[in-house]
Amino acid sequence: MKGIFITFEGPDGAGKTTQLLRLAKELQSIGHEIVVTREPGGTAISDKIRSILLSPDNIEMVDQTEVLLYAASRAQHVHERILPALDAGKVVLCDRFIDASVAYQAYGLGVEAEMVRAINQFASSGLQATRTYLLDIPVEVSQDRLLQRAGQSAHAPLDRIELKGFEYHSRVREGFHHIAEEQPQRITVVNANRAEDEIAREILTDCKRLLEQYFAL
Amino acid sequence: MKGIFITFEGPDGAGKTTQLLRLAKELQSIGHEIVVTREPGGTAISDKIRSILLSPDNIEMVDQTEVLLYAASRAQHVHERILPALDAGKVVLCDRFIDASVAYQAYGLGVEAEMVRAINQFASSGLQATRTYLLDIPVEVSQDRLLQRAGQSAHAPLDRIELKGFEYHSRVREGFHHIAEEQPQRITVVNANRAEDEIAREILTDCKRLLEQYFAL
Repeated sequence: MKGIFITFEGPDGAGKTTQLLRLAKELQSIGHEIVVTREPGGTAISDKIRSILLSPDNIEMVDQTEVLLYAASRAQHVHERILPALDAGKVVLCDRFIDASVAYQAYGLGVEAEMVRAINQFASSGLQATRTYLLDIPVEVSQDRLLQRAGQSAHAPLDRIELKGFEYHSRVREGFHHIAEEQPQRITVVNANRAEDEIAREILTDCKRLLEQYFAL
Repeated sequence: MKGIFITFEGPDGAGKTTQLLRLAKELQSIGHEIVVTREPGGTAISDKIRSILLSPDNIEMVDQTEVLLYAASRAQHVHERILPALDAGKVVLCDRFIDASVAYQAYGLGVEAEMVRAINQFASSGLQATRTYLLDIPVEVSQDRLLQRAGQSAHAPLDRIELKGFEYHSRVREGFHHIAEEQPQRITVVNANRAEDEIAREILTDCKRLLEQYFAL
């Protein structure tokens, strides 16, 4: 595995996608080959699974189904897309990965954390990010941004996960904090309640240093 | 849980569906409330997952994805459909269950059996059949029947699993035999290479005895 795997985590509305794309552009401009991808999704099969997961029609979905569908989507994404890109020496930037499952499903839904980890370890054949940027933001702020976004566009109504309540999203945020405390060498917590440029600068500085070390080895 | 859960296992072409429907009719005629269902499928969400699993378009599906999608479909089926029916005292007859995952995915594909069992234990919250009829038939015979069926009907071309080769289906049959040896008190092996009436009589006799014991308790 010659490439490097970097993930972005945090709630919807924290600015993950924006920051990921800005980082991709900067890294490309200094000569890195970048693959930008996201979960759930990232392959044809994973996208079909994504549509089941996010459709507000599927309101009767039980927690076990949710855990297993996210893991199934991830398994396909890892083996069909991420691992081949890493083997080819690319920098893979991925919007959400296993930390999201632990935060949303173990902390948010209350599924046993060890089970969520074991299933996802199986799904991903043990792949882990080398660096994870956790975009942290108070639940009130991320919820406000989401509602604004939904109000601005008829094409982006809230999905099944976004529609869950404040308590749920508070447990998810707490979950992300716990995970970050457990693995401080991998996870960089970024205060996302600041100007977009400031956040982008912080991530770029850290990431450039990481890549220099990584590719110098 | 007042009802009883009975499953049918064996390869495609062994006559599971035919025998399950005959048993359902007989049991209904003596006053039992019957729910007939099948896997993968059995609920709206499970049917959406089923279509991803069986579509010949999804030829790039990796083994981990296959294991997790079957388990996801099962999780929804168990919690939304099977457990409520059992709670209501019904006899649930199900075409395929966890044994099929162990036979096809562990023995057939080569995924670690303990992992397949653990994931499915999580998916089904530990639900197990009280009786399983394993319709056993030589691979040559089941394959011949399938090809005949596909040839007779333009509406039933072979699906992604059926299209796998003879070696794979031989490992699956061996897997079913191993599982049956491990749990002889639950699994009744039925020689399915006989006349339909003869098979139906054998299953009905066993099942009537089982239900008398079960509901007398």
